[in-house]
Amino acid sequence: MYFPLSHLEDFASRLFESIHFSKEDAKLSAKLLTRADLRGIDSHGIARLRGYYNLFKAGRLNPEPKFSWSSRFPTLFTLDADRSIGFIAANEAMKKCIAAAETTGVGMVAVTNSNHFGIAGQYALMATEKNMIGMAFTNASPLVAPTHSKDKMLGTNPIAIAVPALTNKPFVLDMATTTAANGKLEILQRKNGLAPEGWIQKEDGSLSLNPNELKSGGALRPLGSFPNLGSHKGYGLGAAVDILSGVLSGANFGPWVPPFVSFLPLAENLVGEGIGHFFIAFRVDGFLEEHVFLKRMDVWMDAFRNAESIDSEPILVPGDPEWKLEEERTLKGIPLFPSVVKDLNALAKEIGLEAFSSGL
Amino acid sequence: MYFPLSHLEDFASRLFESIHFSKEDAKLSAKLLTRADLRGIDSHGIARLRGYYNLFKAGRLNPEPKFSWSSRFPTLFTLDADRSIGFIAANEAMKKCIAAAETTGVGMVAVTNSNHFGIAGQYALMATEKNMIGMAFTNASPLVAPTHSKDKMLGTNPIAIAVPALTNKPFVLDMATTTAANGKLEILQRKNGLAPEGWIQKEDGSLSLNPNELKSGGALRPLGSFPNLGSHKGYGLGAAVDILSGVLSGANFGPWVPPFVSFLPLAENLVGEGIGHFFIAFRVDGFLEEHVFLKRMDVWMDAFRNAESIDSEPILVPGDPEWKLEEERTLKGIPLFPSVVKDLNALAKEIGLEAFSSGL
Repeated sequence: MYFPLSHLEDFASRLFESIHFSKEDAKLSAKLLTRADLRGIDSHGIARLRGYYNLFKAGRLNPEPKFSWSSRFPTLFTLDADRSIGFIAANEAMKKCIAAAETTGVGMVAVTNSNHFGIAGQYALMATEKNMIGMAFTNASPLVAPTHSKDKMLGTNPIAIAVPALTNKPFVLDMATTTAANGKLEILQRKNGLAPEGWIQKEDGSLSLNPNELKSGGALRPLGSFPNLGSHKGYGLGAAVDILSGVLSGANFGPWVPPFVSFLPLAENLVGEGIGHFFIAFRVDGFLEEHVFLKRMDVWMDAFRNAESIDSEPILVPGDPEWKLEEERTLKGIPLFPSVVKDLNALAKEIGLEAFSSGL
Repeated sequence: MYFPLSHLEDFASRLFESIHFSKEDAKLSAKLLTRADLRGIDSHGIARLRGYYNLFKAGRLNPEPKFSWSSRFPTLFTLDADRSIGFIAANEAMKKCIAAAETTGVGMVAVTNSNHFGIAGQYALMATEKNMIGMAFTNASPLVAPTHSKDKMLGTNPIAIAVPALTNKPFVLDMATTTAANGKLEILQRKNGLAPEGWIQKEDGSLSLNPNELKSGGALRPLGSFPNLGSHKGYGLGAAVDILSGVLSGANFGPWVPPFVSFLPLAENLVGEGIGHFFIAFRVDGFLEEHVFLKRMDVWMDAFRNAESIDSEPILVPGDPEWKLEEERTLKGIPLFPSVVKDLNALAKEIGLEAFSSGL
């Protein structure tokens, strides 16, 4: 079933308005939520709308947040997002990075007391519109066991880096620091498939192929999967993201990060407020002439796309799959699983909104 | 065979002086080279001294470089290192980052026209002495094949991030963006061992267990090792490091990065000068009170070290193994393989220096 993007946006926007978001915040949140559907990261899009609604019902998401900023330098800022939905906080934070970079060359913002913000790559991409390099990081629900650990100490903690080019679409790396993001498990759950060895471990730390294992106390493994294939590196990257996003901002970090699903209890003795994000934007023309840099990025991309393939699979530049899906879905609409549509209709009924499927 | 660190430093310093380094540059280069031996990253230490000497003989390393800086913002700088050894360039670059961060909160330096700089972590660590967070990146000889590629397009391109704590030694992530760094292959070569599946591929892209495979046209694989275990993420990280270090600085990038070994020819139609590095330093007190942040890092470290183990192996904080080796080797000296000692003595004889082993 294909739906126009605007239909997803309108529904999400109406839902956010119904829980007291301002019209403007509702619209922006809906746009940044469904950007995931547009770019093909279906797990982070409208399928999660109920999750955000549940966070509101549990009192963990403030629909009318008052942002407070603090700063001691023209380049560095902390934003207390007052339990905002992550979309609004992240959007404001990246705008502040860009504004600071306009005058001083670089801006960095740490966000505390926030909630999940969808796909990280879209905030990094905001910087490329000004020919800046953008980076976005967030911590997330603890689902990942460090190398040799049984305990879930980290989230899938993504790293996003976006770089502008001259004639090409920007380079966009947007990756979970785990072997596989949660969304990949959800796809296997729907298909009743098995996960490759190295994605998941059982509660006792032994390997599992079961995509439902996390519901029985299992954990995701850091990128690298096994000690002898470098899983300490994936763990180290997830740790660095947690430190920048959580420790530095004043938010929760490590095992204290509040879970996205509102039915799980919060950890005891929280070490901060909500979840945390971290953003950077800086000017490429602080290093090279802008035109020269953008041209060099085109050369870089051409060289990598032209590398010789082992197996007839193309050599991709990070971001290529998402740009392709964005183009396709802009034309053809967004494909949604029947179960997702059914759940959105049920949610609408529960809270007295017009059904998702109506008006098509 | 154990040797005092000062003995390694003195020998390396004498060698650098013999090829026309200033006394000061020779001493500093020797210290930053052998820091690798001290911290247990033996592949990057004095065992590589001949490699630097050969770069000088090949005319690729300028012992008397004149650094030139350019800058348009108080936070961002490009350094043309005039074919300097990487140690001196990297040290100056990180000092500049720190000085900029003192007044503006953050400093970033891109270095072009440089050479290899040893272990990345030591430059990131310089920032922690001022209670700043430090990051260091470099591109390197193309040895790594992107996901699905036969061609060697990237170096082992390390990411180093160092974070200060209150009572603990700093957090130090210092990782190649490949499954295994070159040094791990060298250890297997000495032992005639086989590499785990996933580290290396043959010239045709199929898997290899042979640690000598790179000499027959093989390549290292990015962190993740296999497409279904996320090797596109390791590739994406290595790519981001190449872009920051090479594309942004004006240095060579991708397959054009000059090889460390001087007997390999340079690529044709070079796209820049030498190899490139990238450095960042920023103040933690731009986000939280310094004491509060440092205390939170201690809490973070304690929590992770206390996670429950699967297999009685301890859960480590990134940097723990290197701090332990540094302590041990400060007391007991640096262990060197007989083959390394023999090679250093041979090198001394070739160029008319007193033997490495003399005076012990």
